[in-house]
Amino acid sequence: MRIVIVGGVAAGMSAASRAQRQSPDADIVVFEAGDYISYAACGLPYALGGELKEAGFGRLVVRTPEQMRGRGISVRLGHRVEGIDPRAGTVTVRGPGGATAAEPYDRLLLATGSEPVRPPFVQTGLGGVHLLKTIPDAQALDVTLRGAKRVCIVGGGYIGLEMAEMLRGRGLSVVLVERGPEVAALLDEPLRAPVRAALEAGGVDVRTGVKVTGLTGHERVTGVETDAGLIRADTVLVAVGVRPRTELAQAAGVTLGETGAVAVNLRQETDVPGIFAAGDCAESWHRVLGKPVYVPLALGANRMGRVAGVNMAGGDATFPGIVGTGIFKTFELGVALTGLTQAQAEKAGLDAVSVDLSTTDAAGYHRDSCPVHLRLTGERGTGRLLGAQIVAEEHHAAKRIDVVAALLGVGASVQDLFEGDLGYAPPFSSTWDFPLVAADRLLRQL
Amino acid sequence: MRIVIVGGVAAGMSAASRAQRQSPDADIVVFEAGDYISYAACGLPYALGGELKEAGFGRLVVRTPEQMRGRGISVRLGHRVEGIDPRAGTVTVRGPGGATAAEPYDRLLLATGSEPVRPPFVQTGLGGVHLLKTIPDAQALDVTLRGAKRVCIVGGGYIGLEMAEMLRGRGLSVVLVERGPEVAALLDEPLRAPVRAALEAGGVDVRTGVKVTGLTGHERVTGVETDAGLIRADTVLVAVGVRPRTELAQAAGVTLGETGAVAVNLRQETDVPGIFAAGDCAESWHRVLGKPVYVPLALGANRMGRVAGVNMAGGDATFPGIVGTGIFKTFELGVALTGLTQAQAEKAGLDAVSVDLSTTDAAGYHRDSCPVHLRLTGERGTGRLLGAQIVAEEHHAAKRIDVVAALLGVGASVQDLFEGDLGYAPPFSSTWDFPLVAADRLLRQL
Repeated sequence: MRIVIVGGVAAGMSAASRAQRQSPDADIVVFEAGDYISYAACGLPYALGGELKEAGFGRLVVRTPEQMRGRGISVRLGHRVEGIDPRAGTVTVRGPGGATAAEPYDRLLLATGSEPVRPPFVQTGLGGVHLLKTIPDAQALDVTLRGAKRVCIVGGGYIGLEMAEMLRGRGLSVVLVERGPEVAALLDEPLRAPVRAALEAGGVDVRTGVKVTGLTGHERVTGVETDAGLIRADTVLVAVGVRPRTELAQAAGVTLGETGAVAVNLRQETDVPGIFAAGDCAESWHRVLGKPVYVPLALGANRMGRVAGVNMAGGDATFPGIVGTGIFKTFELGVALTGLTQAQAEKAGLDAVSVDLSTTDAAGYHRDSCPVHLRLTGERGTGRLLGAQIVAEEHHAAKRIDVVAALLGVGASVQDLFEGDLGYAPPFSSTWDFPLVAADRLLRQL
Repeated sequence: MRIVIVGGVAAGMSAASRAQRQSPDADIVVFEAGDYISYAACGLPYALGGELKEAGFGRLVVRTPEQMRGRGISVRLGHRVEGIDPRAGTVTVRGPGGATAAEPYDRLLLATGSEPVRPPFVQTGLGGVHLLKTIPDAQALDVTLRGAKRVCIVGGGYIGLEMAEMLRGRGLSVVLVERGPEVAALLDEPLRAPVRAALEAGGVDVRTGVKVTGLTGHERVTGVETDAGLIRADTVLVAVGVRPRTELAQAAGVTLGETGAVAVNLRQETDVPGIFAAGDCAESWHRVLGKPVYVPLALGANRMGRVAGVNMAGGDATFPGIVGTGIFKTFELGVALTGLTQAQAEKAGLDAVSVDLSTTDAAGYHRDSCPVHLRLTGERGTGRLLGAQIVAEEHHAAKRIDVVAALLGVGASVQDLFEGDLGYAPPFSSTWDFPLVAADRLLRQL
């Protein structure tokens, strides 16, 4: 049994590990086009911000090729898979020297990941213009930042907001440009303003509703041209989302889903026999929506990889789906969401109701209690819990989203949440912790 | 409809509020023997430690008698109910002047609460010896502490451990004496040592396996006599647990449960028609054990009170039960548990398995990540989730117990926990958050 894995980061290496555990005698080969495997991409902003326990990027590498080889898994860095012949059961691999070779497989995993969206204005070849996805991306950005004074971040999503804090922490002047009407567009509209307020309190110049049209400069960027005028900047970080890398899948005749990512079943199988897909190149099943979505986040990628690994090696595993949980920190603010927002629920045709609760994370009388805002969403008629969004001034409180996330996973109701026996002591919560209070209010509207 | 409530703190006032909302025309009278209603008793240690947003005890009062009267609820402070005649439907009430009167009721709620256990050595009338249950208790202790240097806390449970931190914060020398082999006896044995370590790191002189036999001193206490010698102390705080106040219930012929607290059904009805009970005087249904237990904590008391209030006023509410969640902070440590410990599960005859995980609360490479220990317990054969215990060096992480608590409430399995789509970003968790990692390990042992 020869298992070939294309891509050695989250999903790919999870799959390799699991396949090896499932079938210790299998011949497992990982082809990774880049120079690193199995690194924590989500940690890159924190490495750039100097918030790791050790300086540099080394701590982000979870497993080295040597460690994998020690477990009998062959890892080939700098090897790019350029084609698949499903009938012959081979892939065409270009090695570091430039030569190509056909490599046979019995089971093939596409774990090609995602790539940052590159708007047309990025294609200028100017120095000081960066995307952030890989360790080399981060290393290059780090070098630029050492000589930088004024950075323009294009994009007000996860990476833009995390990087805004990190760059301010490095003492840089930061302008954040977002094309939409407000930052943190994944949240319902009423929860976005506090995120902007945290950025502005942290000294970020936030400009929303502004479209970037080009860059200025000769060898090095000097500014960002927008429909609202020129923004001077010696460094530009473009973080306007990612798209799945599906070229290889498409060339092999693998069907993509409506989202544009690779369509898979819950065993991570594509519609081409023997070919699996997992991670940021693939769709994932959304348990609340009941349909496939494209949500390229790390936990889902790792989980899909494990499922694919077990199944490729002859086992039987099923991806449980996601519920759309996301969380980030920007300055002292913690922001999280799970399930559906009111906007998403309405778009899905659900009869959704949301309640907003502004209170404190700990007992209101306790010195350390901080403001927290929770929006809780349920379905009228069925009483089903649909989702939650938290904006917390003490960031840890955003992690309480997990209570709702866990309940969404088992199809629980708003009543189930309300009946939760959540922990209470004054430094941690009010007697009725805020998710319970919100559930109580929501129940009266369902 | 006349609703009489005996006791005006957590359960009693929750019941009064809910009954009034359910039946705005009902005649609702609350008799409270003390001078305060509706105060946050769990906040008393933090008031004593100076950790409230405002000094003093006023911030702990959630609702005043005036506020309740404004809603049409009559609150009579200093009124002690001394007897019940269920056949006549009256209670005998002694007013502040000493006179008694018979007061009629259609529905009666016993919300008489709990009282601190008073070991024989407390009955000496010595100055400087305190219990901590009510606002007047805390006020008296506060006065004593102003002239104190060396405090002996007797009891290593919630209150003892919280007070140890607060007293050290006041610059006092603190000795904590626990009769059992270790502090935090509610946890399984392996999790107790880190709690002791936190106390000792905070400068508390912890003495376990030591039994108090008496007190020394004439007008004011000078020491605590133990089977391991004399401990000098100018102040003694006795916190060795609470017992339900059931005298009134017993006198009225209300049946107590095996735990010694008042037996109630899920509507909070006792076995005497028209008489309800709620809060710390009553048993509560444990959803994991499937039987009544005595767990006198604030959330359960409030919830029972609401249920009783609705039902007394003609509505139909059901207490969902508890799952035994508890949480406390001592120094920087957060400690939490929910469901059953391994010891409790074994005692209940369950085929329980526990796994221990020592890891970090946030991504291990992140500067702010701190050690956390999780013990997760499940049932062999059924795969049912049974409980969890957390000891976290950054206290907020203990609140993640709620993920398990919420799932226990809906009878979830260890697999359900493992499949949870919990929030991940480096400042909040590892990609696989620690409850997921523990669930994965536990699954392999079930």
